[in-house]
Amino acid sequence: MRIVDLINKKKHGESLTKAEIDFFVSGYTNGEIPDYQISALLMAIYFKGMESREIADLTDAMVRSGDTVDLSRIEGIKVDKHSTGGVGDKISLIVIPLVASVGVPVAKMSGRGLGHTGGTIDKLEAIEGFKVELSNEDFINNVNTYKMAIVGQSGNLTPADKKLYALRDVTGTIDSIPLIASSIMSKKIAAGTDAIVLDVKVGSGAFMKSLDDARELARTMVDIGKSLNRRTVAVITNMDQPLGHEVGNANEIKEAIEVLSGRGAEDETEVALTIASYMAVLGGAFKNNEDARKHFEKLIASGEAIEVLKKFVEIQGGNPDVITHPEKLPQASRHIEVKADLEGFVGGFDSEKVGISAMMLGAGRRKKEDNIDFAAGITIKKKLGDHVNLGDVLCVLHTNLDDVAEAERVVRSAFVISGHKPEAVKYIYEIVE
Amino acid sequence: MRIVDLINKKKHGESLTKAEIDFFVSGYTNGEIPDYQISALLMAIYFKGMESREIADLTDAMVRSGDTVDLSRIEGIKVDKHSTGGVGDKISLIVIPLVASVGVPVAKMSGRGLGHTGGTIDKLEAIEGFKVELSNEDFINNVNTYKMAIVGQSGNLTPADKKLYALRDVTGTIDSIPLIASSIMSKKIAAGTDAIVLDVKVGSGAFMKSLDDARELARTMVDIGKSLNRRTVAVITNMDQPLGHEVGNANEIKEAIEVLSGRGAEDETEVALTIASYMAVLGGAFKNNEDARKHFEKLIASGEAIEVLKKFVEIQGGNPDVITHPEKLPQASRHIEVKADLEGFVGGFDSEKVGISAMMLGAGRRKKEDNIDFAAGITIKKKLGDHVNLGDVLCVLHTNLDDVAEAERVVRSAFVISGHKPEAVKYIYEIVE
Repeated sequence: MRIVDLINKKKHGESLTKAEIDFFVSGYTNGEIPDYQISALLMAIYFKGMESREIADLTDAMVRSGDTVDLSRIEGIKVDKHSTGGVGDKISLIVIPLVASVGVPVAKMSGRGLGHTGGTIDKLEAIEGFKVELSNEDFINNVNTYKMAIVGQSGNLTPADKKLYALRDVTGTIDSIPLIASSIMSKKIAAGTDAIVLDVKVGSGAFMKSLDDARELARTMVDIGKSLNRRTVAVITNMDQPLGHEVGNANEIKEAIEVLSGRGAEDETEVALTIASYMAVLGGAFKNNEDARKHFEKLIASGEAIEVLKKFVEIQGGNPDVITHPEKLPQASRHIEVKADLEGFVGGFDSEKVGISAMMLGAGRRKKEDNIDFAAGITIKKKLGDHVNLGDVLCVLHTNLDDVAEAERVVRSAFVISGHKPEAVKYIYEIVE
Repeated sequence: MRIVDLINKKKHGESLTKAEIDFFVSGYTNGEIPDYQISALLMAIYFKGMESREIADLTDAMVRSGDTVDLSRIEGIKVDKHSTGGVGDKISLIVIPLVASVGVPVAKMSGRGLGHTGGTIDKLEAIEGFKVELSNEDFINNVNTYKMAIVGQSGNLTPADKKLYALRDVTGTIDSIPLIASSIMSKKIAAGTDAIVLDVKVGSGAFMKSLDDARELARTMVDIGKSLNRRTVAVITNMDQPLGHEVGNANEIKEAIEVLSGRGAEDETEVALTIASYMAVLGGAFKNNEDARKHFEKLIASGEAIEVLKKFVEIQGGNPDVITHPEKLPQASRHIEVKADLEGFVGGFDSEKVGISAMMLGAGRRKKEDNIDFAAGITIKKKLGDHVNLGDVLCVLHTNLDDVAEAERVVRSAFVISGHKPEAVKYIYEIVE
C-alpha cells in the first residue's frame, strides 16, 4: 500500500477501505508516513468528505492507536458527556452529581483549559484539596461505590488523534466535520465509556456557526457511536452568549452550586437538566427524558442535589465546606465594573472574546505551561435581550492583576448593544439520536 | 503573514496576492515553511485552482527563487521550445538547425532523460565527441556566431520549482494545471528565453489524456507567457503513439537525420515543421507560419537542412561524419524482432510502455545515477492504423543485454491489435496563441 495512492483515491472522491484507513493512521502514528503526505490527505478529506463507514473506521483506528481505559470492572452502563466547547460551560460540574445520584456510573476523564475555553479539571482544582490525580484502582472503586469520579487525562490515549490534530491545526484542516467528529468520538471511546451525551454548541461563540453545520456534526458523531456500539445522543445547544453568568474557575464552581441549589440562570439550568436527563436515560435509570428531568428538578428543589455535589468534592479530597460557603473559594483582590457607554439592548455576544478576556485576567492559559489564577474571571450582568441603560454594569472583572485595560477593552467589545430587542433566545435547538 | 492563513484563503477559493505567493515560495525554498503546510496548500490549489494573475505570480516567484540565465548578450529574439513529454520525441534535434538557419537564435538548455522519457542531451551525446558542457562564454559566442547552441542544465535554476515538484510527486498534487503550467514556464523563463513554442502532447502516451485538458494547459501557459512578456505559442499534438519510428538515443539521432533529409515519418515531420515554423515566426524571421513552413520544406528538399545539422554537430565538438554515415552511430549487438501473434489493425498504443521497454533495454535511466546505452532502443514497424498479419514484425528491439524477455513482454503489451481500422490519426490538434 502506498500513501500517495490513498491521497489520489480520496482526491478523486473515492472511499478508503478500513485497511487503508488503518494503514495511514498507524503509519502516521509510528512515524513511517511523513506529515507532508498526511496533510495533503487531510486537505483532500476536507474537500471530498468521508462516508459514514469511513468515519467510523477512522475513529476506531485512532482508538486503537494507543491505550484505552478499561472500565469493565465498573458495574452498570458508564455514561460520559462531551461539549464541543463553549465559554462559561460548567455543565459537567452540574451533571456529574445529578446523574450519579440516580445510580448511573459517571467515570469522567477530563482535560485542562487552553486559550478562551476552560477545563473542568481546572475548575474543580479551585476547590481546596480537590485531587484530580487518582490511581486507576481508586478511580474504579470510587465509581463503584459513589457512582462518580473524575480524573485528569493521563496515559497514551489516542496518540493518532493528538498527532493528527496538531497537524490539522497548522494546515487549515480543522474545520472538516468527519475529522472533528472522529477526533471527539475517538477520545471518548478510548476513555472507556459505554454511552455518550454530546453537547454540540452552535452560535457566535461556538466552532459551529450555523445550525445546519451543528446538525451535521451531531448526526456524524451519533452515527459513529452507533457504528462502534456506544449509545450516543447529541443535544444541540445555543452558544450565542456565554452559558449562565460566570466565567472563570472559582466563579464557575459558584455558579454550579447555584444551579444545583435551584437558583441557577435559566440557560445554564435548562442545558444542564437536558443533558443530565439524557445521560440518565442512556444509563438505564429512566425510561424517558421527561421522567428523568422531573426527578432531577425535585432533587434540586429538595436540596438533595447539592448534598451529592458536596459528597463528590469530599470523596475527591476537596473541602466540602466550600459548597455551603462558596465565599471560601479563592477570591480576587480587585472587582472592576465594566459599564455601558450606550443605551439599548444586548443584541449579540462575541462569547469567544469573553473567554479571551477571562484568560487575560488570569483565569486561563495562553500556552499549556502557563499557570492559572483560580480567583480570576468575569461575572456577566447583562445577557442577550436585556435592556441596558447608560452606566449600567455589563459585567464585573475579577482579577489579581494591576493592568486590565486590554482585558476590559476585549470584554467590552464582546457586548453588541443594539437599538431593538432581539428575538427570544432558544437554549436547546434539537436532539439528535 | 502566516502560511496557515494562506492555506485557509485558498481553501475557501480566494485568490492569493503577489506578496502572499512570494511569501510561500521564498519561505518554502529557504526552509522556513515546512513541507506539511505546503502540501496542504498545494492540495487546496488542486481543488480551488488559481486565476491567471496568481499563476503568473507563482511562475515569477519560482523564477526569482534561484539563478536566471542572462542571454542579453545574444542578438535577436531568443526562441526556445518545450515539450510536455512524449516517447520518441526527437523534435528538438530537428528544429534547432531549421530555426537557426533562418537567423533566429536558439540558445537551448536541455535535460537528461528519466524513466520512460528520453532527454535531448542524452541523444546528442550518442554522437562521438558531442559536448554538452560549454562555458557560458562559448555558449553565447556560439549562438551569436551560428545561431545555435545547446548546453546541459547547470546552475541553481528555479530551486523552488524543484522542491515543489518533489513534494507534489509524493502528495498527489502533480495533476493540477496551474501547478504544471507554472512549473514548465518558470524553467523556460529562468533559462533566459524571449519566446517559447510549447508542444503540448495529448493522448494515451501523454500526461494530458483529453483534448480539453491539453487545451486548458496550453491556454494557461500561453497566458503566463503573455503576463511575463514572453511571446508564447502552444501547439497541441497527438501522443496516441510514439512519434516517428525510433525510440532510443542513437536511434533518434538517425530518425532526426531522416526527417532533415526529407525521408522522415509523416507524424514526426509534420510536428517538427509546425513547431519550427512557429519558432521562426516568434523569432521575427517570417510574417506567418505558412511562409516559414514553405521555406523549411524547401530547405529540407534542397539538402541544406542536413548541412545545418552537420554544422551544429561540428560546432559542439561532435563528429559531423555521423550525419552522412549514421551507421557510425553506436550499434547494438542484438536486434530482436517482436512479431504479431494476432491479425488485425494497430488500434491503440500505450506509448509509455514503449518508453519503459526502451529503458529496460538500456536506453534510459531508472534512477538519475544510472548509465545509459546509446545503442539501445526500439524501432516501431507498425503504427496506428497499420494492418498487421500474423507474424508481421511489430517492432525491433536493439540491445546489448542478454535477457530482454521482460522488455519484450512490455513492448508487446504496448500494441493494441484491433479488429477494425481506427479513424485516421490527426498529428496536430490546434494552435493556442
